[in-house]
Parts: sequence; structure tokens; C-alpha cells
Amino acid sequence: MKIRVGVLGATGAVGQRFVQLLDAHPWFELAALAASERSAGRRYAEACTWKLDTPMPEQAGGLVVQPAEPTLKCDVVFSALDAGVAGPIEEAFAAAGYAVLSNARNHRMAADVPLLVPEVNAEHAALIAVQRNKRGWRGFIATNPNCSTATLVLALAPLERRFGLKAVAVTTLQAVSGAGYPGIPSLDILGNVVPFIAGEEEKIERETRKILGRLAPGGGAVEPLAAVVSATTTRVPVVDGHTESVFVTLGTDPGLDAVREALRGFRGLPQERGLPSAPAHPVLVLDADDRPQPRLDIGRERGMASIVGRLRACPLMGYKFIVLGHNTIRGAAGAAILNAELLHAQGLLGR
Amino acid sequence: MKIRVGVLGATGAVGQRFVQLLDAHPWFELAALAASERSAGRRYAEACTWKLDTPMPEQAGGLVVQPAEPTLKCDVVFSALDAGVAGPIEEAFAAAGYAVLSNARNHRMAADVPLLVPEVNAEHAALIAVQRNKRGWRGFIATNPNCSTATLVLALAPLERRFGLKAVAVTTLQAVSGAGYPGIPSLDILGNVVPFIAGEEEKIERETRKILGRLAPGGGAVEPLAAVVSATTTRVPVVDGHTESVFVTLGTDPGLDAVREALRGFRGLPQERGLPSAPAHPVLVLDADDRPQPRLDIGRERGMASIVGRLRACPLMGYKFIVLGHNTIRGAAGAAILNAELLHAQGLLGR
Amino acid sequence: MKIRVGVLGATGAVGQRFVQLLDAHPWFELAALAASERSAGRRYAEACTWKLDTPMPEQAGGLVVQPAEPTLKCDVVFSALDAGVAGPIEEAFAAAGYAVLSNARNHRMAADVPLLVPEVNAEHAALIAVQRNKRGWRGFIATNPNCSTATLVLALAPLERRFGLKAVAVTTLQAVSGAGYPGIPSLDILGNVVPFIAGEEEKIERETRKILGRLAPGGGAVEPLAAVVSATTTRVPVVDGHTESVFVTLGTDPGLDAVREALRGFRGLPQERGLPSAPAHPVLVLDADDRPQPRLDIGRERGMASIVGRLRACPLMGYKFIVLGHNTIRGAAGAAILNAELLHAQGLLGR
Amino acid sequence: MKIRVGVLGATGAVGQRFVQLLDAHPWFELAALAASERSAGRRYAEACTWKLDTPMPEQAGGLVVQPAEPTLKCDVVFSALDAGVAGPIEEAFAAAGYAVLSNARNHRMAADVPLLVPEVNAEHAALIAVQRNKRGWRGFIATNPNCSTATLVLALAPLERRFGLKAVAVTTLQAVSGAGYPGIPSLDILGNVVPFIAGEEEKIERETRKILGRLAPGGGAVEPLAAVVSATTTRVPVVDGHTESVFVTLGTDPGLDAVREALRGFRGLPQERGLPSAPAHPVLVLDADDRPQPRLDIGRERGMASIVGRLRACPLMGYKFIVLGHNTIRGAAGAAILNAELLHAQGLLGR
Repeated sequence: MKIRVGVLGATGAVGQRFVQLLDAHPWFELAALAASERSAGRRYAEACTWKLDTPMPEQAGGLVVQPAEPTLKCDVVFSALDAGVAGPIEEAFAAAGYAVLSNARNHRMAADVPLLVPEVNAEHAALIAVQRNKRGWRGFIATNPNCSTATLVLALAPLERRFGLKAVAVTTLQAVSGAGYPGIPSLDILGNVVPFIAGEEEKIERETRKILGRLAPGGGAVEPLAAVVSATTTRVPVVDGHTESVFVTLGTDPGLDAVREALRGFRGLPQERGLPSAPAHPVLVLDADDRPQPRLDIGRERGMASIVGRLRACPLMGYKFIVLGHNTIRGAAGAAILNAELLHAQGLLGR
Repeated sequence: MKIRVGVLGATGAVGQRFVQLLDAHPWFELAALAASERSAGRRYAEACTWKLDTPMPEQAGGLVVQPAEPTLKCDVVFSALDAGVAGPIEEAFAAAGYAVLSNARNHRMAADVPLLVPEVNAEHAALIAVQRNKRGWRGFIATNPNCSTATLVLALAPLERRFGLKAVAVTTLQAVSGAGYPGIPSLDILGNVVPFIAGEEEKIERETRKILGRLAPGGGAVEPLAAVVSATTTRVPVVDGHTESVFVTLGTDPGLDAVREALRGFRGLPQERGLPSAPAHPVLVLDADDRPQPRLDIGRERGMASIVGRLRACPLMGYKFIVLGHNTIRGAAGAAILNAELLHAQGLLGR
Repeated sequence: MKIRVGVLGATGAVGQRFVQLLDAHPWFELAALAASERSAGRRYAEACTWKLDTPMPEQAGGLVVQPAEPTLKCDVVFSALDAGVAGPIEEAFAAAGYAVLSNARNHRMAADVPLLVPEVNAEHAALIAVQRNKRGWRGFIATNPNCSTATLVLALAPLERRFGLKAVAVTTLQAVSGAGYPGIPSLDILGNVVPFIAGEEEKIERETRKILGRLAPGGGAVEPLAAVVSATTTRVPVVDGHTESVFVTLGTDPGLDAVREALRGFRGLPQERGLPSAPAHPVLVLDADDRPQPRLDIGRERGMASIVGRLRACPLMGYKFIVLGHNTIRGAAGAAILNAELLHAQGLLGR
Repeated sequence: MKIRVGVLGATGAVGQRFVQLLDAHPWFELAALAASERSAGRRYAEACTWKLDTPMPEQAGGLVVQPAEPTLKCDVVFSALDAGVAGPIEEAFAAAGYAVLSNARNHRMAADVPLLVPEVNAEHAALIAVQRNKRGWRGFIATNPNCSTATLVLALAPLERRFGLKAVAVTTLQAVSGAGYPGIPSLDILGNVVPFIAGEEEKIERETRKILGRLAPGGGAVEPLAAVVSATTTRVPVVDGHTESVFVTLGTDPGLDAVREALRGFRGLPQERGLPSAPAHPVLVLDADDRPQPRLDIGRERGMASIVGRLRACPLMGYKFIVLGHNTIRGAAGAAILNAELLHAQGLLGR
């Protein structure tokens, strides 16, 4: 019997991606859709201006949108809520016993909330027990990283695990779907580059270090990785797919071949357990000079991998490469679903 | 009386920009246009598929395109030739007594060829005497940098001059006009990022150090700056304007205000002498969060400035910022014309 | 002494274009800027997110934005107000004695309001007296057409005047700046075509016939032209410049050469009187196969002409061609300013 | 046992689409790939710069590219050759006994060559016998229409069949993939519209009438439909998907509902026979105001349908609508494959 799940903020860009990815999921059944007052009470097919390039799943289209209140008939909720409202709503659901898998930024950096990337830090799920205990909740909140961080950290993790990681300088070229809908006005981005995304650089710098950190002795918190991360973020006229130019200094100097093999051979719990949304290769390494490219490569591994190319030595920092990730799949809805699959495999999803 | 000038490779993208910028120039008169055999013998208006957004100057349109041979009736030639043919042609012109102002990469790194940015290293023009002497030429070759380097180095120079420069990590987001015409196929770049430009990173890394270098004692060569420069270059769907994300480590730690003032207050010989193509401010510093942007800012200072924004402290390298420049004006034709103006002001242009 | 003018809706996309075009206008002095409550009280430089590719004029930047109420210190107001609020505000200004030159759609089709294109129907200005008389206003409202109509009608007028016009089938490919700011979300238009613009087809069909119509005997109203106009409108990823594919049936069959000459030779009152914003050629006819193109041609005649290309015989309707126009200049702010110049030349602008 | 097929011109844009669509085809086995001398002798994976957004099929990647000569080990060849060379090569293959399914324009209008759209004119396949007889060939050539025509004619056929068709005025907004690779230079199309495609309008006007024509008595030729078709073609910055604005005059005036039902209910032989590449609905009619859109709808029916929207009455011609089709699937490779399936179902493919 499938686990009943709901989506909060179901009419937005990330909400739609949740609905798309949950269609015909082997473990989860989409049982509830919630959105703002304006949409509540209407069938999803009418309330939602669908902006994905596959048709809206029929079953979802027939659901009546409900208010985002903890009376939804399901056990797990995926939150695609805006940060402006996500905080208290997610807390109310967790208090009421729901497992909340959130894509919002609000609770990511809280000491007792895991910021999970299943291939990287599955053990951080231990914070859930701490959180329940501390807050007296029957449910819990677990989060996935910001879209740029998600792509970056999957490529850094194998290097950090194998060689240590001292420093990262990253410049992102981010797609417009990362800003939701209506999001970026076309006058701002057609034939243009906008060299600023509010709050994004701080998220990359902080979240990367938390995700790559270790559980402190006792397991009650995460000690962030002692690496320096510096980010510059830009927006480019691409629909889906964040491209990132990365310079890294490792703890040792293993040579290019070892770095490439570490990336290519990287596997984690999702691959070992065969989680339904797990990519076969969480990090794909392309050898062609001019790849990865959003238009050509963003669909690889169903959008769930970080795709690395142009790996080479850097005269300044040691190594440099390009990494591409699907910002609304591995960078948002797909990440949260993989987190739910991980927690289910760890026996943490039942009410 | 104006100095008669010619353009080699006049029908290409950079050649057209030369023709546009030389129209009504106060010192130079466009007297000759040369291109490949295919175009020679036809009026420029017929031989050239004009791709700029201002009409082709009438006077230029009426000139008959000639072969790129040193029989042109002029004293100065601007070279927009492809690197595949530029080498020997430019040498033949210089040997025959022409002043060759070249945008091609072929001779930029030769020890006796100046790679000039007039605000930065006007004194490198001393190499011209060395070159003439060594090669027995009546004329000479002087070069301007690659388009990405041109934008970058104008922003680095004030920092290097004032505080010293140890290291630079730069990621470029380059416009398609930098690849000429037909250049990048639309299937490669519409809604896409291509994370590779052949040879570009090496050019940025080498040329930057030569431009910022000092004349060795005796004046016969340039000692490149002892800084580490590491570049990653990408192509984005923008028509004109290279955007660059720059991380720098300076020789001292002067503080953000001093860095900003050094950039803002930067002036050089072109400004002092009032050269016709000189920008009033070679480095414009914008304070708005989300600037510079190619679509909005590329026309500032008639395309002759480097436009800096998002200047801030970097936890890793010291400082980071965005810089934007017009790749076919300050990054190509405009740069060569400013070089010619400089050399004229230094009395080096007469035959 | 210059006439003092104001702009209503000054912070929006069309409002900014008014401010740009009025800078250093020989007859008009920008004395007042008005916008919504949210902006009122702040300096224009702070209240307005400037989205044009030339810097905001300094004089305008220093003006304090005022509420859109008829207490502005000026004699003429240009209205760039949203249709949602333009109706009563413009009426209040006209009642209070201001000459209102409106780009809004609200009053365009009113029987006593002229819908002016100075080269085409300058005599429709006679409606102003009717309007004042009927409504008891000291001021008046005069309007310019919708952006697509403006471009189309300039190319139809010379044909209608010379040969008669029976039928028009037009398909537009419209730029995003026509929808204002924020306007079209980038997710809707990047790499896409949206085949619908609300209300646009009706405007083209109605306004074209009014503009080309004749004053009824007595001069109290316009009899619309008895031609059939059918439009399909689409949005394409272009920043500025509406392209229109036009099929026309004329009253006679004059032959291609005569059609071309009628377009090319077209002049009107603005050219005869030398109005400051008048294009030398209101209709430019290009002979190259593949023109006009927005990127290359939109700046011709400072954005004030309709640029025709691909003029040829049509096996179905008689003739077909492409026409391009600048939607925020001749299609909006520039049109209203030219109207004001016309009315000033006709002695109608004084209070 | 599958029929062995080959692709001529396999490395180009349409050639790649053939390779993609033939992967795992239930009836056909990709046995041979041919291309120009430059590619011949190399493995396809090396000879071809793959530009589709799914990975190159492994089996195809391992094939060695051969010269385009009639010694290929297969029975059917799909031709994606350039028109500059397709004529004699296709004839040589047909003479040598191959069934040639050609996407090239060279033979489309020949009196004894069928120009097939299986839902529309399957009976035109009778020309194959005429062709073989007349030319003494063991094989034959059958063609599919130009990409714009393919999309248009699927939407016209149900109307012509039911109500008669008198006149069509169509304006296309065509994607860049229609021009192959490298095709359109990015400088020509970024943020731009190019209102001209060489030869395209004539193709639409002629091919539409042939496809909708009837076999003359005796069956030896096609009598083109006596309708007037007038086309204007433009290129827009879209990767895949031609959008067309269509105005039609029918033989009767059936009313909007009947027109809609005729489109929606349209079926043909491919649907009746269940051909593997047949779309369930050859014409999809969308009711939303702002559809179809290339980005959202181009994947419907696996790119094999014409997608109609904005169907409404036209005051000039009777009816107007928008139609969208996938230019390299239903407009090229998919069309030829469906033709092969049709001919196989008719028993015409065996050698």
C-alpha cells in the first residue's frame, strides 16, 4: 500500500514539478494538494497555470486544492511554499504529526533540522530524533538544499570525502525557472545576464558547509565543514539548468586522474538501496571539451545527477571544473522526494 | 590633414566595427578597405553583409575592396584579420612601412611587439623601436588584447598599480559577437550556455600578465607580472558584452572603500591627453545591486569602459566583483583605434 | 520659452520612454512626473527602476514624483497610465484644462476623441473642439493608437490614400516591451512563441479603421474606413520592435512599382512642418530580401518610422509585405509626443 | 524479422533525428549510416556532433559511417541529404532497388513521385508503380513534405475533405532547427526575427496543393487542389517547433463547432492500421486562449501531431487559427518513417 503524500504550494513552479514527479511514483500516492486561499476550493486543473512541457497528470488535475492547514488526508507533505509563509505552516504540520519534506529555506540552517543530500549525509537524519524530542513534535521537518547548492555539493562531496576540501570559489549561471513563476520579467533577462540573485550567495556558502559537515559527538548537531566557500551568482537566459564554474583547493593534491575517478565512482545510500528516484550515477563526468550544456545534458539521469565537465588543473587553486544540475528536479522537488525515499528506507516515514 | 587609414579584414564582424567607429573620426580618414580575394574588386556595400544596428557609413560603402596586400593607399592599417592568415600579412605590411594596429592574436605575445592598453601600459610602446631595429622594418606591429582580457585588465590595473596583485580567478560569460560571423550556430546557444571557448582561457592568463608587466631594464622586453591568473570561459546567449566574475587577491588589504576609489579614480594617458576615443572614466563603478548588465549598460562611455559592479569582500581571496565590457569595441576595434591615437600622440604614427 | 509638460505613469516602461524622449526636447520642458501613491513623494531616481539602455536623464532623476492629480505645474500631460486607472484620471486632467496626450486605450474609440497619426489624419484634430464643447472641458484628450496599429497604419495609409484599401489580414510578432514591466514572465517567452495577446486583435481591427476614416460631414465624428481588417497577434522573444506580416487587397491593382513608390514617397504634415520628432521618411522601404529585422533596423529614423520590406505580389490578396515598428517609440511615447507637436503647430496646445 | 534500414546524410540535424527515432523501432532495424566523404570510415559516435537532448543510441554510435552509395546493406534508405546532392544519389539508390524515403525537396514535385502524408493522401502511393514503370527502377522514391507544409497540411486536410478549401493565407514563425546545423548564425536570430527563408514560401504554396490533390483518372499523376495558397515565412528564436498563423476560406460556411469537430475527429490510415509512429490524434485542438506554444506543447503525441489553437471566425476569410508542429519530427524524420510504415502496411516495402 502506498504512502499518501501531499504538496504544499502545489500551484507554483516547484509545486508543479512535485506533481509531475509524484505521478506514478512506486511508493507514494498523491492524495492532497494545498495552496493559497485564492486557489483553495477549485480543482487543481483550474487553479493551476501549468507551465511544464508534459501534460498535467490527470489524477492530480481532478484533486480539489485545499488550504495549507494540517488537516490534509496524508502522512507526508512536500513543501514548495514561498519562504514568506513556509516557516509557521511547516511547523504546524510537523507538530500535527506530518513528515514535512521542505524545499523552503526557512528551517534549513536550524541546528536540529537535517539538510539532507542522501548520497552525502544520510546520517544527518539522526537530527530528526533530536528535533522531535526538543520540540515535542510527532512529525518532523527535513529539508533539501537550495538549487545551486544541491548541484554543487554533489560534486564536492566525493572530493571532500576522499581528499579533504579547503576552499571553493564558485560562479553560477542560473536558469530562470529557479525564480519560480512569474519570477524574472522577460525584459530583465532576454539577451542579458543579471549578475545578482538576492540571498543566493549566502545560501551556497552556508548550506554547503552544513551538508558536508559531521554530526557532532552525541549527534545533536552538525559541525559545519571548515572550508572556505565563496560564491558569485548570476542569472542567464536559460529555462532549466544551473551551470556553475567551480575552482577548488583540496586537502591533498591527488592528481587529475584520481579526482576524475573519485567523481565518477561516487555512490551513496540511494544507489545502494536502489531508491526509486536515485540516479545510477549521482555525478556524471563528461569528457567532451564543451560539455555539460543545459540544452543538451539537463535530462541526463532524469535530472537527478550533477553533471561535471571540463575537469582540469587550476594554476591558482588546484582544480577547476564546470558542473550542471537540474534546478527544479535535483535542485528542488526531486531532491525532496529522494529525501522522503531515504527516510522511508530508514523507517522514519510512518506516523 | 587627416591620417589615411585602412582596415584589413573589413567585411568581418570586427572589420565592420572598425568601419563604424572610424566614420567621422577627427584624426583618421578611412581610405582603404581590404579583404579576401572573394570580396576584392567589389564595392564594400556589396561585398559586406553588414550586421551592425547602425547603417553602413555611405563613404565606406562606396570604397572598392582591395586585396590585403601592402599596396593600399594609406599609412596606418587596422587588422581585423583571422588568426589563420593574419601573421604573414601583418608582417608584410609592417615591413613595407605601414603602422599595423592589430586585433589578431598572432603577434601579441612576441617579445618585441607591444600589447597595449593605453591607460595601463603606454610605456610598452617603447618596444616598437626594438621591433623595428631587430626586424629591419620601416613600419611596425602593435597589438591590443583579446576581448575578455581587455575588459578584465582595465579593472585589474588600478588595483595592481595601487595595491599589488597576487592572484585572479575569473569566470567569463561571453557574448556571441565575440566569435564573429557566422560564428556560433544558433542551435548551440539559444537558451543555452556553452562552457568552453577554444584558446580563450590561455589568452586571458598570458595576456593579462604581459599587459600588467614592466619593461625590463634596457627596455627591450616586458617582464610579465608575477601574479597567478586562472580563467574559465563560457558563452551565453547575449549579443554584445562580456560579463566576468572576478575574484582577486591583492598585495595588501586596503579595505573596500580604497578598492572602490582606486577603480573609480583610475585615469591614464588617454584621459590626460584627451584622445578622441578615450572614455571619460575607463572604469565605471556602479553601486546598484544588480548591475552591470549587458542589455542596460553596454553602451556606457561609448563601449570604451570596463563597468564594475557588485564590488565586495571575498572570504576566500580578498575581493570579488563583476566586470562588463563591450567585446567588439573596447575588446577589439575600439581598442586598436585608441592604440593608434596613443601612438599618434606619441609621434609614432608618421611614416 | 518652452511649454511645460508632465508625464502620468512616469515610472512604468512607457513612462520611462517619455522621460527619455522628452530630455532636451526643443519645445517641451519636463516639469512634472506623476505616478501611483507608492512612488509619490520620492525622487524619480529612487522611485523608478529604470530599464532603458541609456542613463536616466539627470534633470528628470531629480524631480519629486507626485500623485496623478490635476495640480501638476504644467500645461500638457502625457499619459502612460495603465488602462485600469487611466479613464477617470485623464478626464479629470482634461476637465481642469490640461492638454492630455494619452497612450492609454480608454478613450481612443470615443466618438469625440481624436485617434491621431499626424502623417495620416491630422484633420481629425478637429474633434477636439467638438469634445470641449460637448464635455465642457477647458482642456482635452487626444490619443495615439495601440503599438501594433501604429506600425501597421503608417504603412497602410499611403496605399489607402492612393489606391483605396479593401482588406487587410495581419499577423503580428510582438516584442516583450509592449507588455510593460514586469510584463511577460521569462518562463513564458524564452525560446517560445505565445500566440495570444489579450484584446490586441480587436484594437488593431477597430483602431485602424478609425484612423483611416474621414471626418463625417459637419466634422463631429469620424466615419471609419469601410475595409475589413483581420488580425492575429503573437508574442516573440524580442525586446523592442513589432514585426507584422501583412496581406492587403487594394481598391485598384496598381502594380508593385506603384505600390513601392506610394510607400516610399509618403509624407505628411509632420514632414512638411518639420516637427521635431518627425521622421524624414515615415515609411522606409528596404530592398534586401531578409529585412526589416528588429535587431538591425529598429533604430532607423530614431524609432519613428514604419520599416517595410519583402514587398511583393500575393496570389490571394494582391500584395503582401513585412512591416516593423518601434513599439515604445512610434508605438507609444514617441507617437504621443509627435501628436503634441502637431497640436502645437496647429495652435491647440496653449491653455 | 525486422526490415533493415539505412540513413543517408546521417550526421546532419535531420539525420540525427532519424537515428534517434529509429532506435528500438518495432519494424525497422538501423543497419547502415551514410554521410559525406569526410565522415565515411569513422564510427558514427566520432563522425557525428550529436545535437539532440537525448544521448546518441549506443547501437548507432558503433556503426561505421559509409559513403552514400547504393552498396549499403539494407532495403530501405531514409534520405536526410542536402538538396545540393540529394537528387542523383537518391535516384541511384532507387535504380539499384532501394526504397528511398526522402526528406529532400528535389523530387517532391516530380509528377511520378508521391508526396505523402499518410493521414491525407495514402492513395498517392499508387504513383510508385507509375514511377517504377516509367523509370525502369526496381526501387522507388517517395517523399514527405517540407516542414512547414507538413504541419499546415495536416490541419487543412480535415477541412478540405469535409468542407472544401478555397484559399489559405499563412504566416509562419519557424524554429532554427529547421535550418540544420550549423544553420542560422546566432548573431542573426538572438532576440530577433528574420522575415525570410529562401524558397520556403514557394514550397508551402506548391506542396500543399499537391498533397491535397487527387489522383487524375488513370492514376498516373496528381491534380493539384484548385485552392489559392499564399505564404509568408519568418524565422524566430525558438529551437524546435514551427508556429503558423492561418487564415482560411472554406467551400462552405459550416460554423465554428463543425470546423472544430472536423479537426478533432480527423483520423486516417495510420490510426486505423495502428502504424507504430502514428499519433493517436493527428490534429490536437487546444481550447486554452494562449496555446499552442512551442516550449509547452511541442512534445505532444511524440511530435507527430499538428496542434491547433485559437480557432475562431475571421471577418475577412471565414476562419483563422494557430497551428504548431515539430519541424524535425512530423516535419522531417518522423514523417519519412511514417511514410515507410504506411508503404510497408501496403506491401510496398519488400524488395
